[in-house]
Amino acid sequence: MSTTLTVAVVQHAMGPDREANLGLAADAIASAAGSGARLVVLPELQSSEYFCKYQDPELFGLAEPLDGPTRQALARAAQDHGVVVVGGIFEQRMPGMAHNTAIVLEADGSLAGIYRKMHIPDDPGYNEKFYFTPGDLGFEPIDTSVGRLGVLVCWDQWYPEAARLMALAGAELLIYPTAIGADPQDDREEQQRQLDAWRTIQRAHAIANGLPVLACNRVGHEPDRSGAGRDALFWGHSFIAGPQGEMLAEADSSAVVLVADIDLARSESVRRIWPFFRDRRVDAYQDLTRRFRG
Amino acid sequence: MSTTLTVAVVQHAMGPDREANLGLAADAIASAAGSGARLVVLPELQSSEYFCKYQDPELFGLAEPLDGPTRQALARAAQDHGVVVVGGIFEQRMPGMAHNTAIVLEADGSLAGIYRKMHIPDDPGYNEKFYFTPGDLGFEPIDTSVGRLGVLVCWDQWYPEAARLMALAGAELLIYPTAIGADPQDDREEQQRQLDAWRTIQRAHAIANGLPVLACNRVGHEPDRSGAGRDALFWGHSFIAGPQGEMLAEADSSAVVLVADIDLARSESVRRIWPFFRDRRVDAYQDLTRRFRG
Repeated sequence: MSTTLTVAVVQHAMGPDREANLGLAADAIASAAGSGARLVVLPELQSSEYFCKYQDPELFGLAEPLDGPTRQALARAAQDHGVVVVGGIFEQRMPGMAHNTAIVLEADGSLAGIYRKMHIPDDPGYNEKFYFTPGDLGFEPIDTSVGRLGVLVCWDQWYPEAARLMALAGAELLIYPTAIGADPQDDREEQQRQLDAWRTIQRAHAIANGLPVLACNRVGHEPDRSGAGRDALFWGHSFIAGPQGEMLAEADSSAVVLVADIDLARSESVRRIWPFFRDRRVDAYQDLTRRFRG
Repeated sequence: MSTTLTVAVVQHAMGPDREANLGLAADAIASAAGSGARLVVLPELQSSEYFCKYQDPELFGLAEPLDGPTRQALARAAQDHGVVVVGGIFEQRMPGMAHNTAIVLEADGSLAGIYRKMHIPDDPGYNEKFYFTPGDLGFEPIDTSVGRLGVLVCWDQWYPEAARLMALAGAELLIYPTAIGADPQDDREEQQRQLDAWRTIQRAHAIANGLPVLACNRVGHEPDRSGAGRDALFWGHSFIAGPQGEMLAEADSSAVVLVADIDLARSESVRRIWPFFRDRRVDAYQDLTRRFRG
């Protein structure tokens, strides 16, 4: 049995129209499947522009239930092309409670599972704490026909805890749909440091846990439509890395469907030479659940 | 008050003679102090060749008590040059119990504190579980006149848990004395992947925790003196990185005293734009103390 899994990450730009965004996603899924991919990852909240640039109660109107139009469109595309799809929705759970939720569709269009974003950022231009109730499902991987997927979302990518918990639960791949960009007010050197840090920490999750990482970002300039917030410039640079953090494929900041072959057998061979899990000091980690060690 | 701290990491090769090794360390400390360094980091177990290439009960004869000749020599050098020194000893605690211990000497030669290596590796050519009793002091930073130091040792560098616990306890710098090299049987690409992974994961500890990282490795080819073990080829590449993981200084694989200026104020400014500590999901991390999430 082959241990090679062909995967794709879809890096594209979103506009204000949901139907158009979902059409783009479906086209990209078709393209990825045509390249042999059996797993296709979309950027975070691929159905809309990134709406957290400012705070506006009206924008909760973008939220949809778990079985809403986004899931239906992605399920259709998954089934049409026989691929597993990782997408995202702004999930309306009840009035006054919405989540930033990743959904995983099986190759037959059924729902394999969901993950509700656990770590919620809040920064100028990224007002996520206003919109997103923190996830309540913990860090649980999702079983699919292409393996056990450790799906996390964006800000989670900065937390080694999240990656570790997914790996300890048997995740075979780490997957980070994301929406991250540069602050246009920063100088070029600072922008480069941030991009490099973003790439480095996710590669490090691969290394620490001996498993591949897929990071999928959006691209494009999105105007602030309030006049009071900030424009966003998403930096792309989606990538696929192996279990030593080695780059298998990497995009620049243009729209692209990035495809790579992952040798799933390498995870075990890497873990044999670097058996980090064997030596964890679980007797001495209890303070990781503390806010501060004062 | 200046927030700039000049630091040095000493990358050199060791031979079979302890006096000669300690002489080299003292010379390097003098050189670092002459360059303005106030903190000098030596490689792991700088008083000897790396003796864990094979298992030999006779080699416990290299161990010394906490106040043995290594500490005395390093304390003298620290005091002579008025610098804080991070060194290491093979610590004989009692017959049948030895630790791989980092010692921190104050600029007046007094002992600021010790750290006993918590994560102990065991691999072909690195038989550390034979020699080293796992540390029992936990992950506690050491207060010195140049700041609160998060001193960890070698294999610890692969564990995000260790770095996080040090940062939560207020560490201002992470410091990794180490002895790591390539397996000569590996091809060049594998050797390069390993080196890059080693660099990447330590840079990621800087990023995840918003603080600088100093990694200090030895260099040189050390023959296996048993005939039954493996030669070791230490890869050097010591480095000093800032709180976004950005490289401030980096060595190749030759002997060198690497010096850099660290702006300690940048840690806080980086943590203000990336306030990762604010958003940790301490309510959902309890399984980090489990061996496996079955």
